[in-house]
Amino acid sequence: MLRVYNKAILPAGFKASGIACGIKKSGKLDLALFYSQAACVAAVMSTTNKIQAASVIVNAGYLKAAKDFHAIIANSGNANAFCGQAGIRDAQEMSRLAAKILDVKKESVLVASTGIIGRRLAIEKIEAAVPELSAGLSNHGISKAKKAIMTTDKFAKDATVKFDLHGKTVTVCAVAKGAGMIAPDMATMLVFIFTDAVISGAVLAHALKIAVANSFNNITVDGCMSTNDTVICLANQVAANSPIKAGKSFALFLEALNIICVDLAKKIVRDGEGATKFIRIEVCGTKTPAEAKKIALSIANSNLFKTAMFASSSNVKGRIVAAAGAAGVGIKEQELKIGFSPLEKKEVKINVCVGKGKSGVVIYTSDLTHRYIKINAKYN
Amino acid sequence: MLRVYNKAILPAGFKASGIACGIKKSGKLDLALFYSQAACVAAVMSTTNKIQAASVIVNAGYLKAAKDFHAIIANSGNANAFCGQAGIRDAQEMSRLAAKILDVKKESVLVASTGIIGRRLAIEKIEAAVPELSAGLSNHGISKAKKAIMTTDKFAKDATVKFDLHGKTVTVCAVAKGAGMIAPDMATMLVFIFTDAVISGAVLAHALKIAVANSFNNITVDGCMSTNDTVICLANQVAANSPIKAGKSFALFLEALNIICVDLAKKIVRDGEGATKFIRIEVCGTKTPAEAKKIALSIANSNLFKTAMFASSSNVKGRIVAAAGAAGVGIKEQELKIGFSPLEKKEVKINVCVGKGKSGVVIYTSDLTHRYIKINAKYN
Repeated sequence: MLRVYNKAILPAGFKASGIACGIKKSGKLDLALFYSQAACVAAVMSTTNKIQAASVIVNAGYLKAAKDFHAIIANSGNANAFCGQAGIRDAQEMSRLAAKILDVKKESVLVASTGIIGRRLAIEKIEAAVPELSAGLSNHGISKAKKAIMTTDKFAKDATVKFDLHGKTVTVCAVAKGAGMIAPDMATMLVFIFTDAVISGAVLAHALKIAVANSFNNITVDGCMSTNDTVICLANQVAANSPIKAGKSFALFLEALNIICVDLAKKIVRDGEGATKFIRIEVCGTKTPAEAKKIALSIANSNLFKTAMFASSSNVKGRIVAAAGAAGVGIKEQELKIGFSPLEKKEVKINVCVGKGKSGVVIYTSDLTHRYIKINAKYN
Repeated sequence: MLRVYNKAILPAGFKASGIACGIKKSGKLDLALFYSQAACVAAVMSTTNKIQAASVIVNAGYLKAAKDFHAIIANSGNANAFCGQAGIRDAQEMSRLAAKILDVKKESVLVASTGIIGRRLAIEKIEAAVPELSAGLSNHGISKAKKAIMTTDKFAKDATVKFDLHGKTVTVCAVAKGAGMIAPDMATMLVFIFTDAVISGAVLAHALKIAVANSFNNITVDGCMSTNDTVICLANQVAANSPIKAGKSFALFLEALNIICVDLAKKIVRDGEGATKFIRIEVCGTKTPAEAKKIALSIANSNLFKTAMFASSSNVKGRIVAAAGAAGVGIKEQELKIGFSPLEKKEVKINVCVGKGKSGVVIYTSDLTHRYIKINAKYN
């Protein structure tokens, strides 16, 4: 029996904190710390962009070097990407500063950044803020931490699932940062997942891969792939359940993780930059799931489709046809069936059946609006 | 010596006409006819979209059935796409109506449509208009014909090149319709090219393929691929030059065709829906031209890049980096060099060098603006 909560409730042993260290000129929260005194196993999925932010590169090194993890330090307002070796040193310094005050080794503090690409991180601001950030660590500090990772997000995104396993309560809790530059086939934003489950790193990584494929890799806001996107899952083993390995306990844990990830993925789409509509596109009748995904993404990323959705235009059908045909999958006009729910609603379901086979996919996306232009023209 | 004219001057033996037949509710010109009494050879390139408009399917049949062509009949305001067998019959009826009045066989009249997808063509309006359309055929009728193929275009697009060959003057003249739904790897809009050159169909097709690859396949406005896009080239053989086959005469003809096609491709980008900037993206240093094109298109089709260009935002560099990295081509941060001309100008040049090899490409694109949203939300 899974209990789902529409807010972050940190699992036993986790604390968090968020402050404004001055990276954002607005003075808003921009530095977050997540911490567990008990050592965690970690699973990480990162962007498949060939240009990777310093945090992505540094985390990959830490994951090879360490087995025990204690914290994540994350900033918003600056992506620390395309800053060369200096950027790598800054990212390492971020984790070193947090590690020092937490009295753990540098490699046990994972790091994440989001914001503008190509500018040096103001590491001195982070250095000055780390003592207060660390002092603020608490169970309810998650409410500030989840805001400190936001950029153009209109609302913080979080969710929690609890379930009982071997007489113990296991909690899975996550916070996410989304909004723009969201496209599939990678971990597509910042997502930090915390669980007190007793589980090995290998089993955790396996579960995370499945959950991400079912959620964050099936959403797109603007088809743009970021240099920084990262999903980190930390499991601190304090729930005292028998280790989750396979069978029923794994199925239950995976279900919890799936619920969390799908919930956050949908929240990211709902908060897509400038979005006025939440659009569910189901493609069915393809020979393979990959073909269905190609067609669904060709529609979801078509600017002509997205602007027609914004306008609730009946012309949308023609734009679905053109986008479906442009996907590079062999489909025929006479076998193509398109349906949609009323276009003027805030939530619209699109069904596209191509009559070639039995595979399918569901993708979530948003419309393309004046506000998207406004947000992304001004973001600086 | 090539003489280039920034307007359509029909070659000897060609006439054109354009009228408003009522397909467009606005009452604007929407039906065009292009005609040569002398029989033409034809070369045609069409969209690679899997869903093809009736006109594309019908032309393919005519090209197999006939060797002599006399005319093109084209309408705007309705794409006659995704209309099933009824649409096919309508397209055939369009050419039959023109053929009857021109006293040629149906298969010698090629057909083209552009506009809204998924609605039946008002063939009775075309039928009623064909006599007046035909009566209006003249050399200067091209000025109305080029307007009758426009949809959201702000200006008509045309160009002419003349050159001397074997003591005779050869003319190559073209009109185009562009604006939105422009993406590469297909003939990406309606382009009608007329020449009085003496040239075989096979040589003409060879030249057209090269010219299209260098021009219309290297532009993108919104990355959307249409169901209708067609380039037709008719050669009526009346210039009395010795047949163009290979060597110098072919090179000269190809140069003329290249100039025409690049000129029209640039005009289409300048008139991109809502465009305020003309952007030239040069990618160099790749191992293959295909890799360069992947990177250039990933940048050119990135909504985040396009909105940053609209805003002349210095943030554009980071967005170029992210888009280049997302292209799926193996590039490294430390080898990536990015340069750009002043962003606040109406014409901007972007240079991206990836340091992997000696190949490169030049792509033209436009920015993404509020007007794009407005045009495409309202177009109906």
